[in-house]
Order: sequence, then structure tokens, then C-alpha cells
Amino acid sequence: MIQRRLLSTINRMTEEAKRLAGYAAVDNHVKNNQALGIGSGSTIVHAVTRIAERVKQEHLNLVCVPTSFQARQLILQNGLILTDLDRHPELDVAIDGADEVDSDLNLIKGGGGCLTQEKIVAGCAKSFIVIADYRKDSKKFGEQWKKGVPIEVIPMAYVPVIRALQGQFGGMAELRMAVSKAGPVVTDNGNFLLDWKFDKVHDWKSVNTAIKMIPGVVDTGLFINMAERVYFGMEDGTVSVRDKVVH
Amino acid sequence: MIQRRLLSTINRMTEEAKRLAGYAAVDNHVKNNQALGIGSGSTIVHAVTRIAERVKQEHLNLVCVPTSFQARQLILQNGLILTDLDRHPELDVAIDGADEVDSDLNLIKGGGGCLTQEKIVAGCAKSFIVIADYRKDSKKFGEQWKKGVPIEVIPMAYVPVIRALQGQFGGMAELRMAVSKAGPVVTDNGNFLLDWKFDKVHDWKSVNTAIKMIPGVVDTGLFINMAERVYFGMEDGTVSVRDKVVH
Repeated sequence: MIQRRLLSTINRMTEEAKRLAGYAAVDNHVKNNQALGIGSGSTIVHAVTRIAERVKQEHLNLVCVPTSFQARQLILQNGLILTDLDRHPELDVAIDGADEVDSDLNLIKGGGGCLTQEKIVAGCAKSFIVIADYRKDSKKFGEQWKKGVPIEVIPMAYVPVIRALQGQFGGMAELRMAVSKAGPVVTDNGNFLLDWKFDKVHDWKSVNTAIKMIPGVVDTGLFINMAERVYFGMEDGTVSVRDKVVH
Repeated sequence: MIQRRLLSTINRMTEEAKRLAGYAAVDNHVKNNQALGIGSGSTIVHAVTRIAERVKQEHLNLVCVPTSFQARQLILQNGLILTDLDRHPELDVAIDGADEVDSDLNLIKGGGGCLTQEKIVAGCAKSFIVIADYRKDSKKFGEQWKKGVPIEVIPMAYVPVIRALQGQFGGMAELRMAVSKAGPVVTDNGNFLLDWKFDKVHDWKSVNTAIKMIPGVVDTGLFINMAERVYFGMEDGTVSVRDKVVH
């Protein structure tokens, strides 16, 4: 009983942390007449809620590019204007969550399986802003996020890619299996996902390039040197901001 | 009338050149108890014909991984044993055609739109052997092949990828349109194809890496440092062999 209450308190706290991060990012970066990229996941829900509030209050003229089916639904349910990268290949701001953020503002993304679209949209944005709760904040990858690096692969190549990953970089890669059907998770692009549990600290920039160069890899969940700023919602109800250090 | 006869003579000559290359490659590299990768295109038809002849004559025990719907049909129509990279992630030999071969044995592939699967299969082979007629032989890319470098892209990203390509590397990239339906060519992986007409000689290794790193690019038709040997069928009925120079 005490355990259940404690868990419910923690859940309320992390949800509030996500809300704080989402609201802070939207209030600081969204302006009138912008094209926005809308990320995926549980934290982004709060950002879209705040965008919709501000559109109503301030009569903002915004268009939104989704990174997933979920993001598309959020945009539509909140009465925002849906667009795509054909019409708006250059975005002012993209806002997205992350599974883990390291001290260099590199990200692991793709727990929700939309890493390829998320990277496409982030890559089109002048500013890529990340929102997360305090549990995603790491010095080094793997401190917080235990599920490894998600990697989207062409289905026919999943076995050779697992072999190449483990052979070149060690660790352990597994095909992500679906919970609600028999068989693997199929991404919105019709591909499979590997989760690569690395067993040491790597030079993530070069590993990311090397993994993407393996034939059959569509993209990786490593977002290297892409985020400009991260808003962390903290346990104590504050928001902690971390900016990219320009070397 | 003379023109028509000339054209028909040229067609017979290039077809014979393709046949010679295919037969030479199969006779030199295919042995009993191998797992083979089967490429796509018009030249590969002759290689599969020769594989089937040898399987009957010599009772070879071979299994074949296709790189396309076409290759799968060729394997089945010729009574060969079909397998896949789940069962055979390591291939002894992959044989495939090319649209252009430069003096370093780098290739442009993907005129037929199967570049991603072709690169996956070639990447799984201990020996990657290329067969081509004399028209594919170049010192530098673009001398023979005028249609540019094919690039497979996630459909939602085709406009930003075109912009990134042209912005970073110049030239001109176009979405490949279908002839037999309204709309773009859709690959066997459900993606789109760009044809990037480059306007100068590049460092192809670094350009290939840079293009593949653009979010939304699935793979490129640049096969850098992959081919071990190329068999060119020549106009005079001979076969010219070129091996990779190990630097």
C-alpha cells in the first residue's frame, strides 16, 4: 500500500517534470509565423498542449510537421495546422523528447520507434530543442537508459546487421519484438528495430557514422551534435536548461 | 533501314558481351557448397543461366539470396534453391552488375532501383564480383553513365534530401518518376529514389559517407571499395578482368 502510494507520487512528479519542460520550451522558442517540428513520446504531449493554448490566446499562425502517427494525431486533436516537409522543408524549431541526454547534449532516441522520422525533422530545423524529465539526464550514455541504442534496419538485413554491430562494436543487439502481436515491431516506415546494448563508452560520433554505414541500417537513435538546448523538468518543480557547448 | 540494322547489331554485341562476362564470373568463382548472392539487372540473367547449367551438369549444391523481386524470380525460374540472409548471413560470393565502374573499381549502381538490397547482399559476401559490358567501363564516374547517382530515401524526406544534396555537393537531384503509373517510383522497400546528377569529380568515399549521413537517406548507389573483381564483356568477344588494387 505504501509502495503503491510512493509509485503514484513518483509518477505524478515525473509527469509534472515533463509538463514543466514542455511548457518552458514552447514559451521560450515558439513565436508567431513559424513552422514547427513536433516530436513523439509522452513528454511532447505537454508541449503540444501548450502550443495549442498559445495559438488560441495569442492567435499565433503556426504550421506543424509530425514525426510519427502519434504526433500527427496530437497536432490534429489540438486543432493545429498539419503540414509536411514537402511544403516546409525548413523548420524554425523542432521540439522533441529523448530517452537519454549526455553531458555533450548528445541524445539516445527511439524508445518509441520513430527515430528515423525524428532525425529527419530535427535535421530540417534551425533550432532543435529537447524536453525531458530529470531521469533522462546522464553524464555518459547508459547511466540512465538501459535499453540500448535503437537502430532502424531494412527487414532483410536484420541478422547481418546484428552480426556486424556485435562484431565491430561488441555488446549485444536484439530484434525488438512487438507486445500486441506475434512478431517484430514494424516501424511507420515498414522496417525493423534493433536495440543495441553497448558494453562500454564509445566515441559516439564515429560509432554513429560507422553504424549508419552498415548496409541495411536506415538510421540510428544516436543524435550527435544536433540538440541546441535541453529543458529538464526537475524533481523540485524547477526547470534546468543546458545549452550546447560550442567547442 | 541501315540504321535499324546497325542498332540491332550493337544490341546483339552488348548482349553477347553481357553473356561472356556472366559466364566467366560464374565459371571462375562459383564452387560446390556455396551460398551465393544474386544481383539484379539485365547482365545477371546470363549469370543465373550459367549457374543453373552448372548445377545440372556438375550437381552443385548451392543456395541463392536474391537482391530484388527480379532476382528472386530468376532463381525460382531456373530451379535454384532460394534462401535469405536470416538463414545465410554470410555469403561466399555475390555476383551483380553495375551501371558504371571507375578505375578504382568503385561502382555506381541502382539504375534498376535495387541498390539498397544489392549493397546489403554485397556487404555479406566474402567476394563481391561484378559483371558488365564494355559500355560500363570508365576512368571517372560520369564518363559513361549520365543518369547520376541513385539514392534511396524515406518518402517524407525527399525534398529536404534534395536540398541538402544540392546545397552540400552541387549538381542537380531529381525524384525518379514511374513510367507505368502516375507518381514516383516506389522501391521494393517502399521508399523513393533520387537521381543525383553531380557536376564535378568528387572524393567518392567521403561524399558517399556524407550523403548516407543525411537524415532520410536509406542508402546510395555508390559502392566504394566493395568490388573485388570486375569482368567486362568486350566488343571483340573477349572478357577483360580488372582486380581491386590493394593500396
